[in-house]
Amino acid sequence: MREICGDDGVLTDPSQRRVYESDGLTYHRSTPGVVVMPTTTEQVAAVIRLCAEHRVPFVPRGAGTGLSAGALPHAEGVLLVTSRMRRVVEIDVENECAVVEPGVANLDVTRAASPHGYYYAPDPSSQQVCSVGGNVAENSGGAHCLKYGFTVNHVRGLQIVTPAGEIVELGGKAPGAHGYDLIGAFVGSEGTLGVATRVTVSLTRSPEKTVTLLSAFTSLDAGGEAVSAIISAGVLPSAIEMMDALAIEAAERAVACDYPEGAAAVLVVELDGPAEEVDAQLERVTALCADAGSFETRAASGAEERALIWKGRKSAFAAVGRISPAYIVQDGVVPRTSLGEVLGRIAALSAESGIRVANVFHAGDGNLHPLVLFDDSEPGAGERAERVSGAILDLCIEHGGSITGEHGVGVDKACKMPRMFDDAALETFDLFRRAFDPDGIANPEKLLPTPRLCGERPGVRTGVHPLVESGEAEQF
Amino acid sequence: MREICGDDGVLTDPSQRRVYESDGLTYHRSTPGVVVMPTTTEQVAAVIRLCAEHRVPFVPRGAGTGLSAGALPHAEGVLLVTSRMRRVVEIDVENECAVVEPGVANLDVTRAASPHGYYYAPDPSSQQVCSVGGNVAENSGGAHCLKYGFTVNHVRGLQIVTPAGEIVELGGKAPGAHGYDLIGAFVGSEGTLGVATRVTVSLTRSPEKTVTLLSAFTSLDAGGEAVSAIISAGVLPSAIEMMDALAIEAAERAVACDYPEGAAAVLVVELDGPAEEVDAQLERVTALCADAGSFETRAASGAEERALIWKGRKSAFAAVGRISPAYIVQDGVVPRTSLGEVLGRIAALSAESGIRVANVFHAGDGNLHPLVLFDDSEPGAGERAERVSGAILDLCIEHGGSITGEHGVGVDKACKMPRMFDDAALETFDLFRRAFDPDGIANPEKLLPTPRLCGERPGVRTGVHPLVESGEAEQF
Repeated sequence: MREICGDDGVLTDPSQRRVYESDGLTYHRSTPGVVVMPTTTEQVAAVIRLCAEHRVPFVPRGAGTGLSAGALPHAEGVLLVTSRMRRVVEIDVENECAVVEPGVANLDVTRAASPHGYYYAPDPSSQQVCSVGGNVAENSGGAHCLKYGFTVNHVRGLQIVTPAGEIVELGGKAPGAHGYDLIGAFVGSEGTLGVATRVTVSLTRSPEKTVTLLSAFTSLDAGGEAVSAIISAGVLPSAIEMMDALAIEAAERAVACDYPEGAAAVLVVELDGPAEEVDAQLERVTALCADAGSFETRAASGAEERALIWKGRKSAFAAVGRISPAYIVQDGVVPRTSLGEVLGRIAALSAESGIRVANVFHAGDGNLHPLVLFDDSEPGAGERAERVSGAILDLCIEHGGSITGEHGVGVDKACKMPRMFDDAALETFDLFRRAFDPDGIANPEKLLPTPRLCGERPGVRTGVHPLVESGEAEQF
Repeated sequence: MREICGDDGVLTDPSQRRVYESDGLTYHRSTPGVVVMPTTTEQVAAVIRLCAEHRVPFVPRGAGTGLSAGALPHAEGVLLVTSRMRRVVEIDVENECAVVEPGVANLDVTRAASPHGYYYAPDPSSQQVCSVGGNVAENSGGAHCLKYGFTVNHVRGLQIVTPAGEIVELGGKAPGAHGYDLIGAFVGSEGTLGVATRVTVSLTRSPEKTVTLLSAFTSLDAGGEAVSAIISAGVLPSAIEMMDALAIEAAERAVACDYPEGAAAVLVVELDGPAEEVDAQLERVTALCADAGSFETRAASGAEERALIWKGRKSAFAAVGRISPAYIVQDGVVPRTSLGEVLGRIAALSAESGIRVANVFHAGDGNLHPLVLFDDSEPGAGERAERVSGAILDLCIEHGGSITGEHGVGVDKACKMPRMFDDAALETFDLFRRAFDPDGIANPEKLLPTPRLCGERPGVRTGVHPLVESGEAEQF
């Protein structure tokens, strides 16, 4: 490894390796056998060929902000860190795309594109630090997925190194349908099919105008109705975020975001596009919120007010640490039309169990992020919270939704895959994975359930406790 | 087979089987061993299990309008026709999606959705007859891909039967990132991974206003400049189509579409969206066309004029039959910024060889459809035309484009795949294919090059002549 990456590209000292023991989901920990930090595609390929030759597992890692333990190191394996591959290779304005190395921070793509009037649309809340390669691995989303889609909708080309150490080019700058669209399958494959070493992403025109709206309701139901009404009216905001009373309380205490008092729910609605269209939509959305029972709707009058509205929303997760010693962050999806019912059933679950649940989520997408609060000093409280958290996922599945909206499967939800997919589908996934990685060295035990992780009964998680320490989850 | 599909679901009579000997690319022909027409997913699965058990190849077929011989039957195999599976299972307005069987005609999805104010966006020119299942197999495009994307961008869920005869569900109504996104890989896989038996597609809101614009130029270059200027200005038309003088002449003779006289090129630009936005864009596009040197730009004043503009464009392929006894239709992609240069080099190729080339294409996407004209009664003319046609594809590849924009690879371009993909990529494709289909029974010899088809030298086609008879290509 030292021959390939140089001495400064290989970390073997235990204290150095321990820095990498988890990603953003800190209750899964494992110190990597060795950390390597290649700087070129050729080095990545050589590292992986060496792994393949000796059947040593490797785990790719970007910035380590993932929330499903997708970058959990293997104790006997290589942690392949892309942080030294952070060149923006090209901004191609005419073809509206950028070519970047995998370690480039998400926001740095936008920084490089903005002088030309463009930006990179997928915006996970961790975008200041999270890497494009990590976004590709997890198919990351963000508040603006509603209008602009996930990472997969913005990747045009990939250079990847397969688990055999081969360099393969998929797609390119021009759109085109030919061969198998392995870009779609690679995006979101969580490192199990290899490592992306170069990514060609679409750039999006910066909108002429952006307006952020805050609307307050006396019930969650009324807020949900407003969401349905907006979408049904054919308005497509770039974001529709929702917070309930508990989340509002936490955000207010943490960052004094000045949300309307007495709200049982607020919506943060963002509109962007040509100025005339945005103005027309603003009027429309304001009226629809009023019809649904909003007692106050205000549009941010300037950049500062807009930033404050978003600060409340974006700080909500960390802020919950102020009102609860510990909490579990869940990530699930329901069809938008089931939002009202599922939120009602979450409230009922909370009432029955006596466990508080705060809701902060991408309402337009039906992507829930319930925060299940508990006191970790109280015996058994974590287990009870975990049961509620699991029951919420079951609700998502029951309503035709999914066990993860944007955080991925990783280690954390691998054992829950059988609740979503039947044996035939899981076998198909496994066939697919093994086609790329017959020896199982590429990020093993992630994404798909394994007997070792999940025990005999499929779908039942054993061993680990999903207790996120408070303050851990600023990335959401 | 009769036990599974009933007597009326199995065709063995040679004259009946011969009806299916080709798809829309009629110079590849092969009479299927047997034709089966299942009516349910379970029947499809049983048919494929029977094929798997006896290692008999099967070829899925939708409406047979494909243009790459992707549905070319296997003489010793089963042709699995989905035309009896044509139920629109559900229009789910609230979740903005439709669930359909694979044999449903593309336009029938729009017909079912339109009473609710929605339509199905992907619009191949064959949309009156082509099937959704076939669209999934070929990842079909159309004139409006520029704004709305290809089939893959509209498929949310698939029920498929794998080459082992297993029924697998991929995705669903809710968006969500979990597991491998095999939907992306399945869409465009041309039947080599199995058969889609149920498709969940996104529905798109019908726009408030649509305007179609016709702009005429005295040179191809000027038209190309207008395309670049429109895109650079941040206007995103739903379609930008371009035709050159030869194509205009043919269309004019065929359908009297009343395009401006003396045009070396026309652009058909369609704008849709909220009325105010469309009006603003119309003004902008008209000005940009004038700046680029258009000598006449007119907006269709009503539905009738709009239909006539499109009639000219859509009839152009068939119409070319009026000015040439035979022609080859090519399908390639170049980055939009290379359009001008590639068109210039096509003109030079035409001048050098003395072979006329008409251009009708999706300019906004850089998706070329050159028509290479020749007289099939003249010895050697077909071969010379084929060389020009092949050279045009080489130009596309040289400029970072692709060998097919929307017609797929099928049999027709399988041998050209090595010109686009290196060995590592082709091996990866092959690994992927064999993961699903280890015995090679699912639409064999399509999509990927095989020694039998392509001979010793990779990338060199042998044996067949791509001579489309005139009048064959109304589907474009």
